Amino acid sequence: MTTTTATSGSSASNRRDAALVALRAQTIELPSWAFGNSGTRFKVFSTPGVPRDPYEKISDAAQVHRFTGAAPRVSLHIPWDLVDDFGKLAAHAADEGVAIGAINSNVFQDDDYRLGSLCNPDPRVRAKAVRHHLDCLDVMRQTGSRDLKVWLADGLNYPGQDDLRARQDRLAEGLRQIYAELDPGMRLLLEYKFFEPAFYATDVPDWGTSLLHCLALGPQAEVVLDTGHHAPGTNIEFVVAQLLRAGRLGAFDFNSRFYADDDLIVGAADPFQLFRIMNEIVRADALRPDSGVNFMLDQCHNIEPKIPGQIRSVTNVQEATAKALLVDREALAAAQAAGDVLGANGVLMDAYNTDVRPLLVELREAQGLPADPYAAYAGSGYAERIAADRVGGHQAGWGA
Amino acid sequence: MTTTTATSGSSASNRRDAALVALRAQTIELPSWAFGNSGTRFKVFSTPGVPRDPYEKISDAAQVHRFTGAAPRVSLHIPWDLVDDFGKLAAHAADEGVAIGAINSNVFQDDDYRLGSLCNPDPRVRAKAVRHHLDCLDVMRQTGSRDLKVWLADGLNYPGQDDLRARQDRLAEGLRQIYAELDPGMRLLLEYKFFEPAFYATDVPDWGTSLLHCLALGPQAEVVLDTGHHAPGTNIEFVVAQLLRAGRLGAFDFNSRFYADDDLIVGAADPFQLFRIMNEIVRADALRPDSGVNFMLDQCHNIEPKIPGQIRSVTNVQEATAKALLVDREALAAAQAAGDVLGANGVLMDAYNTDVRPLLVELREAQGLPADPYAAYAGSGYAERIAADRVGGHQAGWGA
Amino acid sequence: MTTTTATSGSSASNRRDAALVALRAQTIELPSWAFGNSGTRFKVFSTPGVPRDPYEKISDAAQVHRFTGAAPRVSLHIPWDLVDDFGKLAAHAADEGVAIGAINSNVFQDDDYRLGSLCNPDPRVRAKAVRHHLDCLDVMRQTGSRDLKVWLADGLNYPGQDDLRARQDRLAEGLRQIYAELDPGMRLLLEYKFFEPAFYATDVPDWGTSLLHCLALGPQAEVVLDTGHHAPGTNIEFVVAQLLRAGRLGAFDFNSRFYADDDLIVGAADPFQLFRIMNEIVRADALRPDSGVNFMLDQCHNIEPKIPGQIRSVTNVQEATAKALLVDREALAAAQAAGDVLGANGVLMDAYNTDVRPLLVELREAQGLPADPYAAYAGSGYAERIAADRVGGHQAGWGA
Amino acid sequence: MTTTTATSGSSASNRRDAALVALRAQTIELPSWAFGNSGTRFKVFSTPGVPRDPYEKISDAAQVHRFTGAAPRVSLHIPWDLVDDFGKLAAHAADEGVAIGAINSNVFQDDDYRLGSLCNPDPRVRAKAVRHHLDCLDVMRQTGSRDLKVWLADGLNYPGQDDLRARQDRLAEGLRQIYAELDPGMRLLLEYKFFEPAFYATDVPDWGTSLLHCLALGPQAEVVLDTGHHAPGTNIEFVVAQLLRAGRLGAFDFNSRFYADDDLIVGAADPFQLFRIMNEIVRADALRPDSGVNFMLDQCHNIEPKIPGQIRSVTNVQEATAKALLVDREALAAAQAAGDVLGANGVLMDAYNTDVRPLLVELREAQGLPADPYAAYAGSGYAERIAADRVGGHQAGWGA
Repeated sequence: MTTTTATSGSSASNRRDAALVALRAQTIELPSWAFGNSGTRFKVFSTPGVPRDPYEKISDAAQVHRFTGAAPRVSLHIPWDLVDDFGKLAAHAADEGVAIGAINSNVFQDDDYRLGSLCNPDPRVRAKAVRHHLDCLDVMRQTGSRDLKVWLADGLNYPGQDDLRARQDRLAEGLRQIYAELDPGMRLLLEYKFFEPAFYATDVPDWGTSLLHCLALGPQAEVVLDTGHHAPGTNIEFVVAQLLRAGRLGAFDFNSRFYADDDLIVGAADPFQLFRIMNEIVRADALRPDSGVNFMLDQCHNIEPKIPGQIRSVTNVQEATAKALLVDREALAAAQAAGDVLGANGVLMDAYNTDVRPLLVELREAQGLPADPYAAYAGSGYAERIAADRVGGHQAGWGA
Repeated sequence: MTTTTATSGSSASNRRDAALVALRAQTIELPSWAFGNSGTRFKVFSTPGVPRDPYEKISDAAQVHRFTGAAPRVSLHIPWDLVDDFGKLAAHAADEGVAIGAINSNVFQDDDYRLGSLCNPDPRVRAKAVRHHLDCLDVMRQTGSRDLKVWLADGLNYPGQDDLRARQDRLAEGLRQIYAELDPGMRLLLEYKFFEPAFYATDVPDWGTSLLHCLALGPQAEVVLDTGHHAPGTNIEFVVAQLLRAGRLGAFDFNSRFYADDDLIVGAADPFQLFRIMNEIVRADALRPDSGVNFMLDQCHNIEPKIPGQIRSVTNVQEATAKALLVDREALAAAQAAGDVLGANGVLMDAYNTDVRPLLVELREAQGLPADPYAAYAGSGYAERIAADRVGGHQAGWGA
Repeated sequence: MTTTTATSGSSASNRRDAALVALRAQTIELPSWAFGNSGTRFKVFSTPGVPRDPYEKISDAAQVHRFTGAAPRVSLHIPWDLVDDFGKLAAHAADEGVAIGAINSNVFQDDDYRLGSLCNPDPRVRAKAVRHHLDCLDVMRQTGSRDLKVWLADGLNYPGQDDLRARQDRLAEGLRQIYAELDPGMRLLLEYKFFEPAFYATDVPDWGTSLLHCLALGPQAEVVLDTGHHAPGTNIEFVVAQLLRAGRLGAFDFNSRFYADDDLIVGAADPFQLFRIMNEIVRADALRPDSGVNFMLDQCHNIEPKIPGQIRSVTNVQEATAKALLVDREALAAAQAAGDVLGANGVLMDAYNTDVRPLLVELREAQGLPADPYAAYAGSGYAERIAADRVGGHQAGWGA
Repeated sequence: MTTTTATSGSSASNRRDAALVALRAQTIELPSWAFGNSGTRFKVFSTPGVPRDPYEKISDAAQVHRFTGAAPRVSLHIPWDLVDDFGKLAAHAADEGVAIGAINSNVFQDDDYRLGSLCNPDPRVRAKAVRHHLDCLDVMRQTGSRDLKVWLADGLNYPGQDDLRARQDRLAEGLRQIYAELDPGMRLLLEYKFFEPAFYATDVPDWGTSLLHCLALGPQAEVVLDTGHHAPGTNIEFVVAQLLRAGRLGAFDFNSRFYADDDLIVGAADPFQLFRIMNEIVRADALRPDSGVNFMLDQCHNIEPKIPGQIRSVTNVQEATAKALLVDREALAAAQAAGDVLGANGVLMDAYNTDVRPLLVELREAQGLPADPYAAYAGSGYAERIAADRVGGHQAGWGA
């Protein structure tokens, strides 16, 4: 516990400067669905001003980038974001100052998928699910997107309902068919999730399963780590380090959770965990824009306003990153090598305990951005404007 | 591990006879909402034949009773089961051979309840939530129901969102107002739930909180134990024993879960746990119909057919109860007193390992019921009939 | 996210001043056993300089107070800290500048307690366990201690091993006998623990059970909340708020954990949780020395040095407390009343994100204490001195 | 729910006959340490008759085989089972009718291993840990053992204490050195464990990590699945199926747990889970003695008698296996293919609900074994004899 370690000395000053450079290059991708309505199985609350179509979602996402300068891409979700002309949507995004990011498939909202998609016992349904992914590849070609993100709701609610191993074989075959259609430079990102919506068994429940499938597919397949998709008590930064070591960490879905939910604002439940995750990223030099790790948000804002929720999510990631960048790695390595348990832990905590908000103010001001993006958005009148303008039509949600 | 302990000898024969008597008196209350559509936040799948109104729900519930002989009551959920004339609905139930059971309030599906109901910071919303409960008391008067079951979705998603303690005070006041309007003989049953839909804090998260409020209210307030509403690893039979010791176990909501979901068929995830729960009930002589414990199901059938799902739920509870009734309590007490850890455990396991399905066949045949209710229903043609008949209209679900 | 909220303005300045006053009055009690050897079931590692007897433990504890100024009391554990003359031990403590705090009973390390102590099926063992507690009351009389802390290892490893409810009855009777012997002004503090060392059922597993027994005993019985003793995902600050509302939070056992262990340095696993706990304390005005809440550590240092481990524990509690004291309660209440979810959360986070280490430096310097207690201890030569001096004898541990 | 499915008809009769054949071939390996004293960090209770040396442990293990006929091998733990002449120990085993099974290394009980063994930051300690494993290979050569079982206690208690990724690199290098010394036919079995004794991070915490290392090592490296070593809620049978699909399930360590402990009698906490695990084994035809899966127990008996505890463990595995063998796989496959959720689940449950104890009596009687091994042992007088004979000396435990 020494204030000085992290904040003074020429080495601390160097770290601060290097942090500013790294933070300036950092980007966080936003999910289009964060701007639509969402909720629990009990209720989806609606609020005035919610987008009615993908164009409005992108406009809202662009506000987050406008005030933070760190969120230049928007992930789409198909069919929620289906439009007639994706070229036009991409142009709209460009007009708003952002780009289309990853394309997310959706093979869980059709009655056909009641017993699964790529793992379904019925070959007709499996073929349909494969086709949907090929359609997503087309969307990628039209929007310039590089990443196909695959999250499957496949699983079982009851023991015996289907054969666990046969489903893995079907999954491998379906992924193989999709992978075969990737263009060079495209990636298939396979997400895992501990549970939900399946309640007894999930077909891609853990990083080991996702990685095994990616290894079988080839170098264009990588793992998506959603911070909310682990068993209670899982050491997520360990998984991050492991996937980086295996060279297969393709993307993050950031969010946070206290229990089993997985869509709270990233950093809201356990900011120290988020810092430890970003610490493994920095330690492995994977923050670089060309590291291949896509830092995305995957969140919903059920009861809080959506654009402010996304702004806070971005600034939370920035704060955790800034702290990770301030870790005195030489002092840390020395204490670790010496077996100084409390000393090494102390070096890490010194960085975590630092108030990095002034550093981020400096970063923003150097970029001509508002010092406080949350307050600046609140004062911009945008929320009032969309509430007044977006009258009529059907608010976007998970259904469309 | 001795087959003989549980199945032979005059004392085993006596236990078997006593079990038949107890099982014959056992009743399990069905939830009307189990017969409508339900699902996760990702998708609600629909199937042909699902009821369009409360009358059809009760007709379906009556099928479960017809084939099992053990499910003579149906819980209603207001406003999902709102009808113009509850007297007529009660008469319909009587015609079908069942009765109206507990009335469940619903103060989570109106936009006003975004930040809670009885705990809401806005006194107007709190008053509205109280009024809804008073309306439920009127439904009870019209239907002859004794139990008002109160489950609140109240809670917080983010730390600081509201004041934890102030919310307890508001809750106490709201419950007090409702309790004051109970007729003699009516009960207020307060359910607790570990989490969901609130993600950071739930206002009635554990049995301790529910019990404290019941004790403050008075003798007509009791705790509802939903088997799916506990933290991972909680010893539920301990809670059952504790609430029985305190004289405040008013009802069960039976269901089961593997993770955080709570609506699978009771006994599907951990049949041994269900047996241990029923063992505490039998041990405390709380199986008696006049014990004050209402054994209810609170389940949904997202991907499986609903009437068969309820039939299996009822038979699962019967099987667990039968095993609990077969425990050789003298041998158990002797082994426990002797400190014979494995011997005592062995007595319990002997009962659990017994195949009680023949005993239940005997029970049913003595009552003129089909030996296999699940198969008998499947062969009855009812499913095909409702699928053909119930065309048009709007299938019932959580929204209505 | 505004730096200014928590750190500028006259109201922020007032909060800072008030925080300094409150922090100056705050005391944290140290456990004597933190200075002896400890470990897991796999291995207890030893290090040079570990105390050989209770006198040396108290001397070490006094070092923590010497450098932090915030740890003036030491809890004892009987029989680990059994001495011939407790008056002499108390005098030694006074000489070292500290006092004897709570007395912890131990009814789990005798072969007689294999199947429990106060809940044991054998009345002879139960009587022995009661007598041990009466002996502890004598130690309290000799040392001027006010608090008898009762943590029982009682529980079951296998279902059926003993009768859950009979054990509650035995527990109630044993506690009643002990409570009856309390002097005026003495308190019986009953600790609960989710699991361990019992693996199937624990006789005091949750706050509800502990509170029920305390209510039955009378006003001198209160609950101990050990921060490491909850089911995964439990909202501990909710329990704190609930026990304060019930007027029965007698003490904290501070520590932290990632999984099921419960003896890491408090604040090491989840500093945000510790802040939220202290926030409930401050919100209920229970930080006051006369609030009746005894803030104790209950930790072990298996692989790290013990005195530095305790110093960091004390400073971690101070930092969390300082942040809780800086919360702008007026702004928080206003945002909560307005239903401003993110605004209210933001007020809380502003305080959490503040670097309070400079404030604590100011606090210490005003008291003539070293600015950095951890570094000051490291530089004091004490560790080297005890390593050199404490040669021969038997290092203290959990066995003695 | 039809009694008939699993127990009548010619196909049921065929399954029964096939089950008898398979059960007769099934073997379960016993851990020598189950016969010594064990306990928690709070207390190790001792009982009369506990072995004083490896010879007596093997004699006790042989009793389990004598009464069950299913436990012909004993795993050793080095150095706990270190003897001067392993050839003599193997001959003693042969005289008793059993053989030496897997050799377990132990690199966690020396002060050098405070910060880890193969992952330790100090290269001297890493080299020492490698050497210990080479010594274990020598024991294997002397005893005819095929399997080197490696479980490492390596991990971190505090964030930052050491570098997560560097530790993986050191681990890979250490394992490589050990693997290089394997004789043809020998296997290195790498066990994973979610947590304990490390509290923040474990270096081999999950099946994914273990498998990655095995894949890097080569075909003689396989994964050990300890049923007690997973995060709460993990679907263990899924992991079994996954490791079988990958061809790398080398062995089971059977035991059970309710919370975080992992050493209760297998099947004691969740017999349905054990059945589901054995169901995946049978489904993959991995029960065959030549399947390469070594079915071992890894348990301790802290409060119950040890030989009876092992006997019950063996019979529990046999009962779960028998039920898995009785599953009507044709009916199951048909229901699964038809998407009949409840039907498929029902086929599985029919087998689970069958009382297989009569089948096991038949199995034993056909082998000339006692029908009830637990009762037969109790009546044999062996327990009384060893209690009388084994006087003096030092009871074996984890320390030796």
